[in-house]
Amino acid sequence: MDNRNLALRINAERMRADFDALAQFGATPNGGVHRPTFSEAHLAARQWFREQIEKAGLEFRADGAGNHSAFLKCAGNDAKTLLLGSHLDSVPDGGRFDGALGVVAALEVLRVVKENNIALRTNLEAIDFTDEEGTLVGFIGSAGVAGKLKPVDLQSPRGGRANLQAGLARAGLTEPGLFTAARDRDSIAGYLELHIEQGKRLSDAHQDIGIVTDIVGIGAYRLKFIGRADHAGTTPVQARRDAGQGASGFVRGIREIILLDFPHCVANVGKMEFSPGAFNIVPSSVVVSLEFRAAHEYDFAWLETCLLERAKTEAQHFGLELEVEFIGKHAPTPMSEKPRRAFAAACDALGLSHLSLASGAGHDAQSLAHLWDAGMIFVPSVDGASHSAREFTEWSDCVNGANVLLNAALQLASQSQSS
Amino acid sequence: MDNRNLALRINAERMRADFDALAQFGATPNGGVHRPTFSEAHLAARQWFREQIEKAGLEFRADGAGNHSAFLKCAGNDAKTLLLGSHLDSVPDGGRFDGALGVVAALEVLRVVKENNIALRTNLEAIDFTDEEGTLVGFIGSAGVAGKLKPVDLQSPRGGRANLQAGLARAGLTEPGLFTAARDRDSIAGYLELHIEQGKRLSDAHQDIGIVTDIVGIGAYRLKFIGRADHAGTTPVQARRDAGQGASGFVRGIREIILLDFPHCVANVGKMEFSPGAFNIVPSSVVVSLEFRAAHEYDFAWLETCLLERAKTEAQHFGLELEVEFIGKHAPTPMSEKPRRAFAAACDALGLSHLSLASGAGHDAQSLAHLWDAGMIFVPSVDGASHSAREFTEWSDCVNGANVLLNAALQLASQSQSS
Repeated sequence: MDNRNLALRINAERMRADFDALAQFGATPNGGVHRPTFSEAHLAARQWFREQIEKAGLEFRADGAGNHSAFLKCAGNDAKTLLLGSHLDSVPDGGRFDGALGVVAALEVLRVVKENNIALRTNLEAIDFTDEEGTLVGFIGSAGVAGKLKPVDLQSPRGGRANLQAGLARAGLTEPGLFTAARDRDSIAGYLELHIEQGKRLSDAHQDIGIVTDIVGIGAYRLKFIGRADHAGTTPVQARRDAGQGASGFVRGIREIILLDFPHCVANVGKMEFSPGAFNIVPSSVVVSLEFRAAHEYDFAWLETCLLERAKTEAQHFGLELEVEFIGKHAPTPMSEKPRRAFAAACDALGLSHLSLASGAGHDAQSLAHLWDAGMIFVPSVDGASHSAREFTEWSDCVNGANVLLNAALQLASQSQSS
Repeated sequence: MDNRNLALRINAERMRADFDALAQFGATPNGGVHRPTFSEAHLAARQWFREQIEKAGLEFRADGAGNHSAFLKCAGNDAKTLLLGSHLDSVPDGGRFDGALGVVAALEVLRVVKENNIALRTNLEAIDFTDEEGTLVGFIGSAGVAGKLKPVDLQSPRGGRANLQAGLARAGLTEPGLFTAARDRDSIAGYLELHIEQGKRLSDAHQDIGIVTDIVGIGAYRLKFIGRADHAGTTPVQARRDAGQGASGFVRGIREIILLDFPHCVANVGKMEFSPGAFNIVPSSVVVSLEFRAAHEYDFAWLETCLLERAKTEAQHFGLELEVEFIGKHAPTPMSEKPRRAFAAACDALGLSHLSLASGAGHDAQSLAHLWDAGMIFVPSVDGASHSAREFTEWSDCVNGANVLLNAALQLASQSQSS
């Protein structure tokens, strides 16, 4: 390892200025950001990122999946590229750190390498992946790069067909174009990402850096409980086929399933849509948006079975029909050894404590990990708040994370790459 | 009683033609109608009603609350007016009979009286009341006529302010204008309405006609369960303040309350609105649309208390806050003796069986009953289906109801009116 590189630090003030500027795009009154994929605020943030790339003298690159990158050629023509990055989109009414921190840190790493004229064995690329949060489809950018995006993924996307079409049109993209973003397997050296933890384990354990061992598997379904519309004044409660009863029983039931049988997993109903939706009509149908996560393959499959069985049971209990629509699934994904070791070495060289942990959130790394060495680090989230305006990480922790990213990248990019 | 009048019958074929024509406005593929107040389909049905009035040589009248009437002067200048009527609006995806039957029957009664040149002691008016189903506010037309509509009723209407404003604009009405529809107490002799039962009691008891004794009281609230948005992958279930859990617990709870303690009452959650509404965010708030009904004052007040207490308990159990928004209330309303006796006499004269029952649905009669003698009859609903495309009444029962309406109206309009 090159000891001179280990001494390197990012420019904390410059990265702070970037971070603060970015937080203005889609800023909400309560201090968060609202930047769903290809919303006006998201498009403005993407434009700002492009301007920062060009201002830094880096090469701006874009692909058919809407990914935007800063590229720094610091190795030969045949060299592979080490990707560093995250995403600029947010969940509705999300926080300022999720995604944004990883993008500004990746950009800052490239600036530091460029201004220090460091020669490496791989080129560097700071990338903003499209639609990590799944406003439209989920992981459009990273699945596109990995060649894993399929036409069928676009047929019943999380956000609906109309949203997908409108979003792509706003960004000047097309559905066929999304599939052109796939990279050659031999062109990429690996992927590193800095992210906030979105949980409390680091702060509870008083550790500076979390090195991710696995990314949880995520499954999503839409479950439609179908009953019968009736007059809510003249139909006795016991004579109803009330879709709201079955759907509500299911929501209560998933909590029971997790607490009793899957204490290390999670499940969520983020939305229920009632039809026809009037005060005085017994609901004829309720569509439930279900998501669940597990870090290991066996738990994942068994949890999925239990949840769908419970939905059937609740539907039967209230005389309802159940329509099950599969939305998507990402298998649990282990992170690669090589980046994990590089992160640990960088922490040690910088005098930072570190902890190995699984990620309860999905990340772009899971799209890439089957093809390339992918690794992630986390910095502590105060109170574990995430996907919320309350999301917060101490700035000193953000700087620590960016310094670990820098030094791990330098280590990996200094190693000889088999190609 | 005038025996000649008792022999009168409405023209069943003519009324059938009206009924079928009206069912085309807002017709849904499954045989129902979708005519929310001041939708395009509802405006078209209103225009059609006006044309039938004019075609029948009756006087068309309209007021500031959007009520449309056929007027037949069959008494002196100082005579009162007996109102007959119902409403042309429907719930979303409702049935063809609810409201429509009462309007075409009232119009048919006036045509029969006119073509038989019957001299009476009161004038007759067949009225279509605005917004009975509450798409906008609920009972705009009848409360307007009774002078009971208040500016505060328009401030947080059931359908929201924007819907109200847009609807009034489409109908060429204004908010101040709504209050101009109030009639002098001395100008009205009473109100009679024919309606489908919307329940199964008549068909279960094999009776032709239901004579309404009371109209249930109806209360409506919006209950907002407020928790905390969190990342659905990284926040353990036991650490969440999940608004969906409290709201779902409440939905299950109201069923328990009704079945255990209020078997003669009903309650309904017709809608739940989740925020922010994403698969991967724990819902920060859920707004529950609650309605409940009871035929007697004591039950009504006690049920209201139990429901609101249960909402508080569920909110506390899941660490949520609760915001209670009162939407509206109609007290339980007894029907007047005089029309009830006239309906019973008409049934007897026509050889029709009849049953006294309370109405589980709200009707315009409840707006009018405190000022004037109001009465209603029901005809049997097959399977009790209501507020649904499955709503159906045998045509022979519709004709029976219209004949009872005709003969009861003749009897009441023949009596001397104190003025």
